[in-house]
Amino acid sequence: MDLTHLSAKDIAAKIDAGETSCEAVTRALLDRIAEREPAVDAWEYLDPDKALADARAIDALPSKGLIHGVPLGVKDIIDTKDMPTRHGSPIHANNQPCTDAPCVTLVRGAGGLTLGKTVTSEFASQHAGKTKNPHNPAHSPAGSSSGSAAAVADFMVPVAFGTQTGGSIVRPGAFCGCIGYKPSYGDYNPLGVHDNTRSVDTLGMMSRTMDDQALLRAVLTGAPYRPIQPPAIGDLRIGLCRTPNWHLADAPTQACLEGAARDLSAAGATVTDFDLPDGFEAAMEGFDAVSGYEYSRTLSYEWINYPELLSENLRGNRVPNGLKVTAAAYQSGLAALGDYRKRYAAALQDWDVLITPSAPGEAPADLTTIGEPPFNRIWTGLYGPAINLPLFTGPQGLPIGLQVIGHLGQDDRFLDAADAVYRALR
Amino acid sequence: MDLTHLSAKDIAAKIDAGETSCEAVTRALLDRIAEREPAVDAWEYLDPDKALADARAIDALPSKGLIHGVPLGVKDIIDTKDMPTRHGSPIHANNQPCTDAPCVTLVRGAGGLTLGKTVTSEFASQHAGKTKNPHNPAHSPAGSSSGSAAAVADFMVPVAFGTQTGGSIVRPGAFCGCIGYKPSYGDYNPLGVHDNTRSVDTLGMMSRTMDDQALLRAVLTGAPYRPIQPPAIGDLRIGLCRTPNWHLADAPTQACLEGAARDLSAAGATVTDFDLPDGFEAAMEGFDAVSGYEYSRTLSYEWINYPELLSENLRGNRVPNGLKVTAAAYQSGLAALGDYRKRYAAALQDWDVLITPSAPGEAPADLTTIGEPPFNRIWTGLYGPAINLPLFTGPQGLPIGLQVIGHLGQDDRFLDAADAVYRALR
Repeated sequence: MDLTHLSAKDIAAKIDAGETSCEAVTRALLDRIAEREPAVDAWEYLDPDKALADARAIDALPSKGLIHGVPLGVKDIIDTKDMPTRHGSPIHANNQPCTDAPCVTLVRGAGGLTLGKTVTSEFASQHAGKTKNPHNPAHSPAGSSSGSAAAVADFMVPVAFGTQTGGSIVRPGAFCGCIGYKPSYGDYNPLGVHDNTRSVDTLGMMSRTMDDQALLRAVLTGAPYRPIQPPAIGDLRIGLCRTPNWHLADAPTQACLEGAARDLSAAGATVTDFDLPDGFEAAMEGFDAVSGYEYSRTLSYEWINYPELLSENLRGNRVPNGLKVTAAAYQSGLAALGDYRKRYAAALQDWDVLITPSAPGEAPADLTTIGEPPFNRIWTGLYGPAINLPLFTGPQGLPIGLQVIGHLGQDDRFLDAADAVYRALR
Repeated sequence: MDLTHLSAKDIAAKIDAGETSCEAVTRALLDRIAEREPAVDAWEYLDPDKALADARAIDALPSKGLIHGVPLGVKDIIDTKDMPTRHGSPIHANNQPCTDAPCVTLVRGAGGLTLGKTVTSEFASQHAGKTKNPHNPAHSPAGSSSGSAAAVADFMVPVAFGTQTGGSIVRPGAFCGCIGYKPSYGDYNPLGVHDNTRSVDTLGMMSRTMDDQALLRAVLTGAPYRPIQPPAIGDLRIGLCRTPNWHLADAPTQACLEGAARDLSAAGATVTDFDLPDGFEAAMEGFDAVSGYEYSRTLSYEWINYPELLSENLRGNRVPNGLKVTAAAYQSGLAALGDYRKRYAAALQDWDVLITPSAPGEAPADLTTIGEPPFNRIWTGLYGPAINLPLFTGPQGLPIGLQVIGHLGQDDRFLDAADAVYRALR
């Protein structure tokens, strides 16, 4: 059996059954990384000797929980007490937190092995990291959770943390071809995760299977593990949401989405158009004000002490422009976004889930971009769960994803429904 | 002139005019601390030699900004790169952040001197720190921002950071007798401040003058300094808000509030009763669910790795009970609180500010309590600005405060109005 292709759930089950060990799995993953990392560059920090020592320590213990022996990748804006946390910036090359973030503690507390830190774009913003798309190293892996998506898609690790402000979970999932799940805002504890725009930032997870999302959700929320229970596809009311940014999706992406709608309908689902309520533009202007205000102040330490070590995008654009947003404009932006959230929730009542593009197209052949967020920011701002399903392949041979959107605070039902969609279209 | 009695604004002006120096002010404050700290215990960390060296370094520089040379206290749940950050817990006795929190960077960037770290209750929760009430060391200073309130009230430092989840700025201000200002939620950047309940936690400031709040607001939001401009008291529509918890206020507190209403009316203000909209109890149940879910997960690192070093309150009560709150109940709590926020904002339209108790009574003669939050949590949850004005003295000779509440996102206007109230009642 190829240990690198196992899901987190299968790894935990096989270790529990005595069929393999954390050390064996870790060794297989390290071999895979040794082979592929020169092309993919998914890892910011990885110490193979430490990983193997940690794996042996886990093997020596009785099972600690749901993911005993499962290796995970940790996006490098998340604090770890035994590995540096560099935030994708040379300013923090030597940053060594004294504690683990709660999310890292929870996975370690359930027996998980934190294999290493995955590459992030600079402070989870637009300046790309070193990672390449595992399907074609000339193409972008997207960002900001580039290393996590590339590592999971390329079988270097079964699951890895991502975070999303614009589309930093869903879009890397789409470009690299893995599942990327952004839970309802706040469900996964965000302490010890560097802020981008705290009012919308959401911690989530990359995986290759839906069951792994359910498994990690149990670990990260403290709930009992509840396996995915997909409803009959015929029971689902699915909204086809092109969004006001539909013209920004390329033809293959539009064709994939509309084809998915037809196929779901043919499989028995009730598929109808869903239009976002009026006020989309005002809500996105609110998002801009909120993000400008918060992100620029969040980077005060770097901006005041080490401006020359910030990327040109942050130093010349994002921070100075954000600083121009007043507190009053910020509060108006929060209010506008909150109002839209309420109206959207009312509009969504008659649908179970929406389907919408995960990204405008395939990964561009440009390693300096993390991709564009026109199909992502609104969903992060609306707070409900969002997931990328790696379903399609574009004309360049690269993945195209389908994004599924659900009701805020109903993530179990959402994962079930997304799994039904996934099964119907695979 | 007694340098310890100067406001931040006056210190900055006198240093700018060459009438004193940061070193001289720091020396005066250190002398005051040496005299009073044995009784008050306001400081978690303070290195006099370092403070004086930092002061001389500031004096050697041209003015960096609005508070050049002004010493500040920093609540010890806020990251500082040159001082430990212990969160009121032995678990973090050696916790040394690699960076300053943005709020610390902003005050340092404007020329401020971070004098030392002030005592906090354990992780800004109910387990009291060592600080005593400066008016009577047998009495509580309240919490969680106990050290900051006591230090400012006792002339150890002109201003100090506080944070509020329940009433951790307003109530220590009330018990210790200083101004405690909780801005609109999010106005002061919270990165690098340990979470209690992130969805309501708000960073704010203790001071002895209203002008210092305006000055520090400029530094912390990045706005130009806008001195307080109190309106004519006759122009204010003031709501007297007893809240559904009025029966929990003792007779002297009730008399102070109702007397304030009469005096403001006599001074020309329009004072009328303001009743919170129906749904207060449901909103507070929402607050409980949100706080339970977030706080318990936030303490994962400590709960999983060092449970024996948590206080009995956290280990036996707050964390295990919070862990019982499901993600769905959490999201319902957020929704309930959000709905109430909207209805309250509509109800508030016809008033400029509200007046309400800052605390149920004077500081209790009990150093194990941080006081009770029945007059605080609702206002933190409603997100608008709140301030304690140290106006009255109770039968035990201890301070009783007046709390003024304003409209979310209108903090300049709020500070102006609160100053008019303060002037009318002093």
